[in-house]
Amino acid sequence: MARAGEEALIARYFAPLSGPGADGLRDDAASLTPSPGHDLVVTADAVVAGVHYFPDDPPGSIAVKALGVNLSDLAAKGATPRGFLLTLALPDDWTEDWLAAFAEGLGAMSRTHGCPLLGGDTVRSGGPALIGVTAFGEVPTGTMVRRQTARAGDRLCVSGTIGDAALGLALRLAPDAGLDVAHRDVLQDRYLHPRPRLALAPVLRGHARAAMDVSDGLVGDLTKMLAGTGLTARIEAARVPLSAAARVLIAKNPSRLATALTGGDDYEILCAVPPDSLPAFLAEAERVGVPAAEIGLVEPGEAPPLVVDDAGEAMTFGAGSFSHF
Amino acid sequence: MARAGEEALIARYFAPLSGPGADGLRDDAASLTPSPGHDLVVTADAVVAGVHYFPDDPPGSIAVKALGVNLSDLAAKGATPRGFLLTLALPDDWTEDWLAAFAEGLGAMSRTHGCPLLGGDTVRSGGPALIGVTAFGEVPTGTMVRRQTARAGDRLCVSGTIGDAALGLALRLAPDAGLDVAHRDVLQDRYLHPRPRLALAPVLRGHARAAMDVSDGLVGDLTKMLAGTGLTARIEAARVPLSAAARVLIAKNPSRLATALTGGDDYEILCAVPPDSLPAFLAEAERVGVPAAEIGLVEPGEAPPLVVDDAGEAMTFGAGSFSHF
Repeated sequence: MARAGEEALIARYFAPLSGPGADGLRDDAASLTPSPGHDLVVTADAVVAGVHYFPDDPPGSIAVKALGVNLSDLAAKGATPRGFLLTLALPDDWTEDWLAAFAEGLGAMSRTHGCPLLGGDTVRSGGPALIGVTAFGEVPTGTMVRRQTARAGDRLCVSGTIGDAALGLALRLAPDAGLDVAHRDVLQDRYLHPRPRLALAPVLRGHARAAMDVSDGLVGDLTKMLAGTGLTARIEAARVPLSAAARVLIAKNPSRLATALTGGDDYEILCAVPPDSLPAFLAEAERVGVPAAEIGLVEPGEAPPLVVDDAGEAMTFGAGSFSHF
Repeated sequence: MARAGEEALIARYFAPLSGPGADGLRDDAASLTPSPGHDLVVTADAVVAGVHYFPDDPPGSIAVKALGVNLSDLAAKGATPRGFLLTLALPDDWTEDWLAAFAEGLGAMSRTHGCPLLGGDTVRSGGPALIGVTAFGEVPTGTMVRRQTARAGDRLCVSGTIGDAALGLALRLAPDAGLDVAHRDVLQDRYLHPRPRLALAPVLRGHARAAMDVSDGLVGDLTKMLAGTGLTARIEAARVPLSAAARVLIAKNPSRLATALTGGDDYEILCAVPPDSLPAFLAEAERVGVPAAEIGLVEPGEAPPLVVDDAGEAMTFGAGSFSHF
């Protein structure tokens, strides 16, 4: 298929994804106003081919990841999505087939989460593809859930299961012939397709003192949550929720537990909940369909968070946090 | 100098640029609320090394361009800056010296225009550097100046002078030994350093029916302003304001007039003003220190805009618009 110019591409593939205030992407800017009594929440994350995803991943999956990692940040802040801007930097060998599939995946994710496209930019990358998203959400005024506001005594909780995406990535790099195909597929799907925990947003606003999404590994992200606050934490590895597939893999090779606890791409929520609010938090999380589990405790102290194993011994990790940078 | 990790870089170079709502860049998102009675205006543009700027340009100049092209979009929409997000995709050979100079230029531009850093992302590009900015501005509710809302009879105006940056770029690619050094420096500076016309924003809100910034060349951008609206335009080339330096260059080689009219990177404002408002628009523009000039007329019709020369003949251009894509 011949490759069209920027204006034609926008009209063909991206204008159908656009929302109110975007004027059909025929302008250089969009207008956006929070609902009365609300603040906007803004966040930007980019994914790069060969860094955050495999260049030969399905284009629709790449789009789900690019938008999903940003929606995950909104969820952790307690926000409801309002829209997004897309910066699409394409390599010289892009094809219109790739772009059509990318736009289809992007549109599906956008509709699922009620987050229309408001504008953006399309440029030549001169290297690998880069997909940058700025996502906008809103919260009732003053209720954005912050990252560094935990207090001593708060209980640490996570949503869903931890480590699936990191194990899925490990399997992709080094297949495990003995693993059940269904388990392998579950883990690899978790790596490909973030599931932003937007259903949990109001529950976090109601009960969490601090929250962030787990994108760079549970241990490293917990360290970031507490860095410089005069607080530390103690986590019991046995309480960290694992999927059936992850449990099978770890049973075969216990060193994979460290991968699960420090690998990236979970896109689950890590939060600190005051003890009095814990029962209500866990019950409401269950009710909105996002199981959450208590995994540890916030304590006074300057040391890095401690993760203890079944025997009560401190676990050590080679790299505390995965860095894409 | 040793290269620091992402968290350390943010704390050292970018946190000092951060504004209210950004929590010192210690969170994954920022909160942002328009002033009472205002809408937010959001826009995103990226610049790429080797595409939008020369990789060996001064890092501070690259920062001025990356933020400036976005502030220029806000100006054209009639908006006052409120803040920005930065996506910084760095090549493998980045240095901390480069980053320090980049942050210094970014901070100066940010302070000059009252547009603090609210957050962002730092990633490995796997290729050339890419700097993506999402800029936020605000306008009194419902007053954002749109791109495609001109009407027949409106007068077309531009701010400042047109073509300087394109001629500056041409000089950089093919030096003209006969040109006065001061003139050369003026033109090359215009290519390096966009001057977003934010002072004109309230004047546009008050008097312009439609506006956009001139980033991809006057002729091409005017075509975009009218595409699909059932309108065309007639511009008199002799009325397009040129700098003294541009006039000298064009006098030496008249074909350079086409470069000035179709080249990119002007970051001036093109707007459509109802005839009744024209005197007030021009007077207020003068008063805020941004000279503006009437260059033509919006007319009914589907044809591309017409540019006529001194003799009243239609000019033709090889490429109507510069495309970075």
